[in-house]
Amino acid sequence: MVDGTVSSDVAIGREMYGWARELFPVRRSLTGEGVRDTLRYLARIVPGLTMHEVPSGTSAFDWTVPDEWVLRDAFIADGEGNRIVDVNRNILHVVGYSKSVDAVMTRAELEPHLHCIPDMPDAIPYITKYYELGWGFCLAQRQRDALGEGPFHVVIDSVHSKGSLSYADIVLPGRETREIMLASYVCHPGMANNELSGPVVLAALGRWLSARQDRRFTYRLLFGPETIGAIVYLSKHLEQLRSSVDAGFVLTCVGDQRAWSLLQSPRADTLADRVAKHVLVARGVDFKTYDFLERGSDERQYCSPHVDLPVCSVMRSKYGTYPEYHTSLDDLSLVTAAGLAESFSVYREMIEVLEANETYIATQPCEPQLGRRGLYPGTGTRSSSFSVSTLADLLAFADGSRDLIALAERIGRSAIDCAKTAADLVAAGLLDSVPSSTGTGHSQRKEPI
Amino acid sequence: MVDGTVSSDVAIGREMYGWARELFPVRRSLTGEGVRDTLRYLARIVPGLTMHEVPSGTSAFDWTVPDEWVLRDAFIADGEGNRIVDVNRNILHVVGYSKSVDAVMTRAELEPHLHCIPDMPDAIPYITKYYELGWGFCLAQRQRDALGEGPFHVVIDSVHSKGSLSYADIVLPGRETREIMLASYVCHPGMANNELSGPVVLAALGRWLSARQDRRFTYRLLFGPETIGAIVYLSKHLEQLRSSVDAGFVLTCVGDQRAWSLLQSPRADTLADRVAKHVLVARGVDFKTYDFLERGSDERQYCSPHVDLPVCSVMRSKYGTYPEYHTSLDDLSLVTAAGLAESFSVYREMIEVLEANETYIATQPCEPQLGRRGLYPGTGTRSSSFSVSTLADLLAFADGSRDLIALAERIGRSAIDCAKTAADLVAAGLLDSVPSSTGTGHSQRKEPI
Amino acid sequence: MVDGTVSSDVAIGREMYGWARELFPVRRSLTGEGVRDTLRYLARIVPGLTMHEVPSGTSAFDWTVPDEWVLRDAFIADGEGNRIVDVNRNILHVVGYSKSVDAVMTRAELEPHLHCIPDMPDAIPYITKYYELGWGFCLAQRQRDALGEGPFHVVIDSVHSKGSLSYADIVLPGRETREIMLASYVCHPGMANNELSGPVVLAALGRWLSARQDRRFTYRLLFGPETIGAIVYLSKHLEQLRSSVDAGFVLTCVGDQRAWSLLQSPRADTLADRVAKHVLVARGVDFKTYDFLERGSDERQYCSPHVDLPVCSVMRSKYGTYPEYHTSLDDLSLVTAAGLAESFSVYREMIEVLEANETYIATQPCEPQLGRRGLYPGTGTRSSSFSVSTLADLLAFADGSRDLIALAERIGRSAIDCAKTAADLVAAGLLDSVPSSTGTGHSQRKEPI
Repeated sequence: MVDGTVSSDVAIGREMYGWARELFPVRRSLTGEGVRDTLRYLARIVPGLTMHEVPSGTSAFDWTVPDEWVLRDAFIADGEGNRIVDVNRNILHVVGYSKSVDAVMTRAELEPHLHCIPDMPDAIPYITKYYELGWGFCLAQRQRDALGEGPFHVVIDSVHSKGSLSYADIVLPGRETREIMLASYVCHPGMANNELSGPVVLAALGRWLSARQDRRFTYRLLFGPETIGAIVYLSKHLEQLRSSVDAGFVLTCVGDQRAWSLLQSPRADTLADRVAKHVLVARGVDFKTYDFLERGSDERQYCSPHVDLPVCSVMRSKYGTYPEYHTSLDDLSLVTAAGLAESFSVYREMIEVLEANETYIATQPCEPQLGRRGLYPGTGTRSSSFSVSTLADLLAFADGSRDLIALAERIGRSAIDCAKTAADLVAAGLLDSVPSSTGTGHSQRKEPI
Repeated sequence: MVDGTVSSDVAIGREMYGWARELFPVRRSLTGEGVRDTLRYLARIVPGLTMHEVPSGTSAFDWTVPDEWVLRDAFIADGEGNRIVDVNRNILHVVGYSKSVDAVMTRAELEPHLHCIPDMPDAIPYITKYYELGWGFCLAQRQRDALGEGPFHVVIDSVHSKGSLSYADIVLPGRETREIMLASYVCHPGMANNELSGPVVLAALGRWLSARQDRRFTYRLLFGPETIGAIVYLSKHLEQLRSSVDAGFVLTCVGDQRAWSLLQSPRADTLADRVAKHVLVARGVDFKTYDFLERGSDERQYCSPHVDLPVCSVMRSKYGTYPEYHTSLDDLSLVTAAGLAESFSVYREMIEVLEANETYIATQPCEPQLGRRGLYPGTGTRSSSFSVSTLADLLAFADGSRDLIALAERIGRSAIDCAKTAADLVAAGLLDSVPSSTGTGHSQRKEPI
Repeated sequence: MVDGTVSSDVAIGREMYGWARELFPVRRSLTGEGVRDTLRYLARIVPGLTMHEVPSGTSAFDWTVPDEWVLRDAFIADGEGNRIVDVNRNILHVVGYSKSVDAVMTRAELEPHLHCIPDMPDAIPYITKYYELGWGFCLAQRQRDALGEGPFHVVIDSVHSKGSLSYADIVLPGRETREIMLASYVCHPGMANNELSGPVVLAALGRWLSARQDRRFTYRLLFGPETIGAIVYLSKHLEQLRSSVDAGFVLTCVGDQRAWSLLQSPRADTLADRVAKHVLVARGVDFKTYDFLERGSDERQYCSPHVDLPVCSVMRSKYGTYPEYHTSLDDLSLVTAAGLAESFSVYREMIEVLEANETYIATQPCEPQLGRRGLYPGTGTRSSSFSVSTLADLLAFADGSRDLIALAERIGRSAIDCAKTAADLVAAGLLDSVPSSTGTGHSQRKEPI
């Protein structure tokens, strides 16, 4: 367990794992009832989380909200009517957004519509064809090898119809209007690390943030379908987000315990990147840093030109890097209560550091007389004249040029520890926080188009 | 052969080698008929190349155009009148700009006027005394050892007389008035890598540039004597060059195949340096980078304080680094058609990259729907969601802050490849080029004095 | 001996060692007659050095000038009246600022007031309790082991009374009002490297600077008690120092020959840091660089927020890093005449470089014709066209963007050598110095509060 994960986190980990177990069987897709069921479930955890519907056909930048896809049934049956591939056994068996088919066909006719992973004989791949009209089945190589020659009864009973794209958000106001954005996505069916871990950790953070007495930042939480959900959301809120978001994070692949990963923003030095890196380093976590060239989730939209939000992503095993990724093997045996709890703890610490990330300045020239204030040993001994404490170092470097993260890094200590010492020094009248400038997320923000 | 050198370059290589063979025997010096013959020859290759004459005695900054030096004959004869050292056998035998002498002298009297390279017994050194009135002979150590005691008849029949300094230039206009400057020098007699390779490669580039249908940049080509030629040219065109040149290159030592060298500008990060470095790296060429402290050719003037042009030099074996340098052994056996062709190819690619070096910006927020446009596979498969193509990376990073070279380097690809993809994206309406600011050669250009 | 230490420095080294020997027995403390005797002694070396008195109780920022402490006697006697610990044998035996005591006590009663270093059985530690009312004795572990059980007659005869804090300063005016500040401290009793080496080297520098015919900078020298002395001085001169000091140095621990140390300013790149680093590197000295986190002397005040002077410290064995530090073993056997002489020589070279640290610019475009001026060999030989001298490199890089230190580093030579060549070039009319901007100490100085 990562240093800093406290015992109450164990309970939260178990709770999150329970939510994932209940949400696992829900048939999610880009749109539709599965998404709405998932959002309704999450709204019971995060009070005030509000669902929004955007009608099919609505334009969003270069995109159009697609029709809803309702899947009633899908199977491949043998000559005797036995369902040898059946979507009721695993939702991944049908290619997402497949059109209807009802035909008897030979093995040769069926073949072009089958998808397997030859070197993972037990894994059903996850495949979607959102923007192309076709159909297909996904199955384990072992199943495919045992299919026989047919003829097969091949049925996909689906409907594409006008409906809406669903997402849910909540804005938790703080003392400042500057925002921290936290987003995850709810369109992946039948998989756990990618992606139920993100929504459940985000829900736990949302519950914790709503309960928090005093928030410095305003927090914006978003759950929607990946890509089109982010694009639709940005098309509605771009100017607000561009002018308010100081840091944002995409929560995805935060459920296993095998690795820590940091997918950086394109600039790699935004406030989001800085706090993520600082907390991972300060906790002594062994993590891999990925350039934005290895992006793969909604940061693709949040960090695109003209959007340019300070967004990064702290993950465990990153999408695309672990063998079970986008297959039926990415299930609830991969994700653990402890893994979820550690991720929750890291994100919570990142938020705590952001809350305390003031720019500090000493209140007077020269060192204060700490001895007189009981903050320093009064005896000049052999060692005290050259060993200097966190407290003295904070005062020595608090010249109003650095935020807490930079100050902590300058003096070689963790921001979360410095936050406490800084609070003591503020209470003693020795330190002050400089009024924060707006828009600290980017140093070189471009003007909106 | 360097990757990117195409078969037609082989023909150009043979052609350039042919020019070098014809120009090799011409008796060049700082000034005079040899220089003019050489410039007339080059003007037949580059249509429109224009010769200019600057009278002896003309001031140019700290310098004065010297008199012309006409060498009629020079030899050392033995007692029987045999010419044992004869300028008709090798022009290097006489020290450049020697005054006349006609005397019978002993070996001891002759000795102070003889120049050899003891550890290269077959090499005649190249020596000039442009700004000092004296005389001397250069010969191989082996010749010197066999001289005997004399007496010798020593004759140099030369005249220093008012005349002119000759150079030739051409300005090929482009869509923009911003300039790319390409310069070489034509004062070296009897040597090949340093220096006939520069003039012949520059002539081939000039012919190619004049024939080019559409030029973005204006190109300025210059052939003149080294040092004094560059100084005279700068004294006449300084303000024009300072306000217009975005990148410039000194072409010298581009004929052998033993090495690649980059002599950087003093700042090392001008557009000229950047494109040279990028192209050499992208082609996988193994090259050595030299700091401006190791300068030695006309960049000494082009990059001097108050001139400060963005000029560097891509070379093969750099002057001063190869054993045959400034001796009679730097001949046409050192320079090859393939070596010249590779140099031509590298400079041509540098020019192509400069022509395409726009600053690009995506036309809209968020990723475009590439699938709908046939630019991207529509099927969300196990790998496609995280492998991103050059196209997607270009779009993701084209935020209007980087020129093509920087964009290509940011996404880890070659600028010449990115240029093609960028053109496709511009055609598809997904990418736009930001109007170029003038004077991109330097980020921190100083004002002229 | 460090390269650059000349033979006359040997004499100065012996002289400085003599001063240290005479000052060693003086009973210094934060305040009082010992400090004043020391300052009077130094004023005989540095003509014009002026003593100032600041009354007890005066406020200085967060501090108050303490009462003077007069120690009349202090000893521990055995039952027969033998003084087994006696301040007359070593001033370090009594804890600094101890209050009076006169009592007969058992070993057990005495124990809490005894201070030793168990693993250095022969060393008497140096301890003070300036801001806490108590008393104590310091003794060697070996003495403590031999004490016996008592009873002991324990006497400290001391008085704390209104008086003053004493310091001495001198301002040596230069052609410019920009200042170089040099400070050391005179409150340490009975120790040599830390601290008599600083005052004696500073006195030697002061004498040398006063005798100097022509000073570019104004020099400010300060001797006072550590910490409270610097704070009091800053409280009186803050605005003057902030607006005038271009570089400052704390002279401390400059007497032994075992190491060289550089304690950097918080920014690590002020003019003070740059000249110190350059001179140490250029002299080929093997030195250790310390971050400001390892500060320990008056730079703690000079570099504090709102003071922010460009101050660093070149030392030999740094306080806190050598075994004898703050014990009776830091005596005159540790400090050597040669060590003091080398330190003097390094500081003097730093000052010479600062005096010559103009920003140079060539007077005309292009290389000047050095041959014509007798500054360059006129013969173009095999090597001269590419080997370039310090002179040519200075001219090539003197574009008005760099001070002498940066210019020397750019061309890979020592600033002290470049200063001489630059003077030649100025005399020849080829180089000019750009009028210095005021306040070159910091690039990013903050406004005073």
